[in-house]
Amino acid sequence: MKDYGIHHKDTKTRRLCGALCLFVFVVATATAKEPPPLSIAQQGYVFAGSKYSTINDQQVMSGQIYAEFQIPAKQTHRWPILMIHGLGQSGTNFTGTSDGREGWAQYFLRQGYAVYVIDQPGRGRAAYQPDVYGPLTPPDVENVQRRFIAPERYNLWPQARLHTQWPGKGAPGDSVFDQFYASQLPSIPAANATIFNRDAIVALLDKIGPAIVMTHSQSGAFGWPVADLRPDLVKALIAREPSGPSFFDIEEIGAPNWFRNAATS
Amino acid sequence: MKDYGIHHKDTKTRRLCGALCLFVFVVATATAKEPPPLSIAQQGYVFAGSKYSTINDQQVMSGQIYAEFQIPAKQTHRWPILMIHGLGQSGTNFTGTSDGREGWAQYFLRQGYAVYVIDQPGRGRAAYQPDVYGPLTPPDVENVQRRFIAPERYNLWPQARLHTQWPGKGAPGDSVFDQFYASQLPSIPAANATIFNRDAIVALLDKIGPAIVMTHSQSGAFGWPVADLRPDLVKALIAREPSGPSFFDIEEIGAPNWFRNAATS
Repeated sequence: MKDYGIHHKDTKTRRLCGALCLFVFVVATATAKEPPPLSIAQQGYVFAGSKYSTINDQQVMSGQIYAEFQIPAKQTHRWPILMIHGLGQSGTNFTGTSDGREGWAQYFLRQGYAVYVIDQPGRGRAAYQPDVYGPLTPPDVENVQRRFIAPERYNLWPQARLHTQWPGKGAPGDSVFDQFYASQLPSIPAANATIFNRDAIVALLDKIGPAIVMTHSQSGAFGWPVADLRPDLVKALIAREPSGPSFFDIEEIGAPNWFRNAATS
Repeated sequence: MKDYGIHHKDTKTRRLCGALCLFVFVVATATAKEPPPLSIAQQGYVFAGSKYSTINDQQVMSGQIYAEFQIPAKQTHRWPILMIHGLGQSGTNFTGTSDGREGWAQYFLRQGYAVYVIDQPGRGRAAYQPDVYGPLTPPDVENVQRRFIAPERYNLWPQARLHTQWPGKGAPGDSVFDQFYASQLPSIPAANATIFNRDAIVALLDKIGPAIVMTHSQSGAFGWPVADLRPDLVKALIAREPSGPSFFDIEEIGAPNWFRNAATS
């Protein structure tokens, strides 16, 4: 009986311990790997900036920007964030990472922001019209590695070796690279993109109301004129690694050794 | 005191009445206009089916399908629904209506299904490669009205007059029409689409596991060969207004009077 009692107590202790351990494990796992559910009051999409014109006796639509939105159930910030991708990208730039983690759309939703994620006019879910937008430049496997994924292998600028955080091998055949490269889309000529995006983003703001405008890389050049045209609707302009305001007839030249290396690329 | 008491009672009654009315109003409004928040355990996107090939000495990627997914916090159905749009469309076919209501993606999420919503290879967020997919056919303002938006105005088949539910005027310049038309995308040749979609959907199922495959219109033709190739992964095939299985060298001819009218279109 005593043995049994001890054994019984022991079993209970072990059970309690096991349950506690399981609880701690489950909580830790949930915290570490699975964020809590997103609570979304509303989600959908909107197009803005479309115009009809006649080309070769056909009525065609162009100019439209695509914006998908999510509004959190607990919206704690007044202005939504309008996320505008750069060259060769689409809204997927913000809706997830190439190795399967959440993107900035989810991150800011969790912080209580409504988010609008766009595809530029003539790209992705905003239809391309060759006669309006001009010829497409497709993505380039080599350039994507050289400029974005693995600059440390090309050593084209002094800090390139410091680029060490890309997951995986960063080359075709690696699953993370392939997911990223699959998300790359053809781009319309840069000068046209600046005009069409400026007008479409203005039309989008006119439709959805005031927002925080967040640009990236190529789309940096779209943010400044939009803020000039709609100072009341652009509540903040966040320009990440941005192209500058539009200037023409300049030639960008880096330091001598950088320029020599770049010329061979 | 009595007056005051009656008055007090009256006030309480009115307050109760008012509270009840407000409650009923709030519930009715919530039911009628604002569905409860969506609780999403996970959302993101995945590409599947990409292949590299060499064209004009350039390494290019093609074949990939884009699929965005949402998994509800309370997933009550074992298999996700894979939603595959038809000709000229993209995933927006399922993520909202042109007049701003929720789409089937949200509807099935609310029923406890995980949903995957695709863009076909060569369309939308799955990059177009001219040398691989062949030339694009752009959307056509007239054809979209004749076939989808306003068949009752063209009277090309006996039941066309029964098409009465499209909101708005159903013509360019109407905001609902313009939203729909803005969502239309160029399409690759039909025979190529059948092959590329078949292979890409198979690759997607191999990646995400078993699913209910839901096709529509053009994509009806993609569903049957996928079910043949992956009978263990296609848990159900839902073909809405589908194109049939692929047959070649047939000419579709309707009833004589229908054919006469159609020939003028």
